[in-house]
Amino acid sequence: MSNSVTVAFLGMGTMGAPMAANLARHGHALTVWNRTPDRPGLTLAQAAGAKVANSIAEAVSQAQIIFTCLGDVPDVTAVLLGEGGVLENAPPHSLVVDFSTIGRETAVFLAQQLQARSLRFLDVPVSGGDVGAQQGTLTMMVGGDPTDFAQVLPYLQAMGKNITYCGPVGSGQAVKLCNQVLAALHMVALCEALTLAEAQGLDPQLVVQVCGTGAAGSWALSHLGPKILDGNLEPGFMVQHILKDLRLVQSTIQTQGLNLQGVALAEQRFQQVGDLPHGLGQGTQAMIRTYRENL
Amino acid sequence: MSNSVTVAFLGMGTMGAPMAANLARHGHALTVWNRTPDRPGLTLAQAAGAKVANSIAEAVSQAQIIFTCLGDVPDVTAVLLGEGGVLENAPPHSLVVDFSTIGRETAVFLAQQLQARSLRFLDVPVSGGDVGAQQGTLTMMVGGDPTDFAQVLPYLQAMGKNITYCGPVGSGQAVKLCNQVLAALHMVALCEALTLAEAQGLDPQLVVQVCGTGAAGSWALSHLGPKILDGNLEPGFMVQHILKDLRLVQSTIQTQGLNLQGVALAEQRFQQVGDLPHGLGQGTQAMIRTYRENL
Repeated sequence: MSNSVTVAFLGMGTMGAPMAANLARHGHALTVWNRTPDRPGLTLAQAAGAKVANSIAEAVSQAQIIFTCLGDVPDVTAVLLGEGGVLENAPPHSLVVDFSTIGRETAVFLAQQLQARSLRFLDVPVSGGDVGAQQGTLTMMVGGDPTDFAQVLPYLQAMGKNITYCGPVGSGQAVKLCNQVLAALHMVALCEALTLAEAQGLDPQLVVQVCGTGAAGSWALSHLGPKILDGNLEPGFMVQHILKDLRLVQSTIQTQGLNLQGVALAEQRFQQVGDLPHGLGQGTQAMIRTYRENL
Repeated sequence: MSNSVTVAFLGMGTMGAPMAANLARHGHALTVWNRTPDRPGLTLAQAAGAKVANSIAEAVSQAQIIFTCLGDVPDVTAVLLGEGGVLENAPPHSLVVDFSTIGRETAVFLAQQLQARSLRFLDVPVSGGDVGAQQGTLTMMVGGDPTDFAQVLPYLQAMGKNITYCGPVGSGQAVKLCNQVLAALHMVALCEALTLAEAQGLDPQLVVQVCGTGAAGSWALSHLGPKILDGNLEPGFMVQHILKDLRLVQSTIQTQGLNLQGVALAEQRFQQVGDLPHGLGQGTQAMIRTYRENL
């Protein structure tokens, strides 16, 4: 597929680079930018056909669609609204599509700021990790104007597989936070089941093998259970990122006065992992360390 | 398939009756018994070809294999060891196969008592609910002597699909308790994710639809999520049964000094459901009531 729409992609990290590469491979003309210039992600995107820009201004000044994949709230805010950023340099009416998990309030705030300068905004947080980004199989949760969604859908299809329109701006964020609640508590379930298995003198492999096929099955059990049993705590999805996402959940919990004790427990366990050596940079399955140390 | 081995099946409840019916349909000569005579389960088994006995003695006195599916520890103990029960009436060397979830210690105790009278014992707790029992797709976790397992496997295959030998007597129970820990905590995850969705003004259907396909997926989300959203709290698997199973888990937790806060939370939530009107007899997905009432 080839067309004349000019596309920018800002943020060539673990997720952004393979996503941009998939866009380029699908024939979309693409200019990419990364804050730190010497990153392998830039090389990856360039090898797939993307042009590399030296500044946000250079990347976006002709862009009709601007993708961003930047991580945390301060990064997204700085790149979109900060000095030399997207707001100052993008042409009017261009469409900004952000893949970061930043919470509904930030998404709504960013959309308002951009709209004041005639820029459009979609929040499209993703799930599926680096593997999903590489294989173009990400789950994508879309918040914003349906017409904007329709315009960008062919591009999203180059990067994701299950792409769902969730409602007005911030709705993608809202669904993503529910996703993270499930993922976080499934990890508690997995760690406690494996701990109980070992305490009973069982080969914990039996739990992964037997329980995965029935009413106790989960993606976490089938995909992260074997990693735990192999002693592989590499990310996947880092503890520091699930902690960030659970803090966003806490903000809704407090605003709404919810009593979600499971979320609180999962957050506490991930904080304990983060306090252990190298914990923050390990995969979420590293929660097992808190059980092995009987914290 | 037809053969001359004489088989008894005790307990024609929600699980036992369809399991016995599947055995009969596979051509196994079968005598069934139920404590309460006027139960639909007896009719079901009879219609499938089973003979109905009026006493345990009548059912088991010629039996080479005796299946029991009876629910809680006191029932199993009474039927196997009590007056007029299996121990008094079964021929020597016959094989007792119990499908109940009764915990490892009870399974080991029963095996010892039966062995003293030359009877053999396998613990084979099952997972998959009434639907799995009807369809013959139960997950089965087998503890006991491997030779006894080999003898009974063709019969189990008439009732189950994923049938795994887990180790010596009680090992099936041990794996089943891990299964219940996963199932219980997946329900906490599901209830908190749906609660967060509603608090954010989302259609909670989006969570089932979007999150089920990715790294937050679980059997509970895909099978019990829709029931919750349809307002269907019928069992499936009853709250009173998961409470019984979690009490068995607590016994191991206390013996081993484990700190499984997730299990404690799930148990507390299920107790709260049990305290609500009709709660004990509803399906595990009725946990959502405790969140809707903001307990």
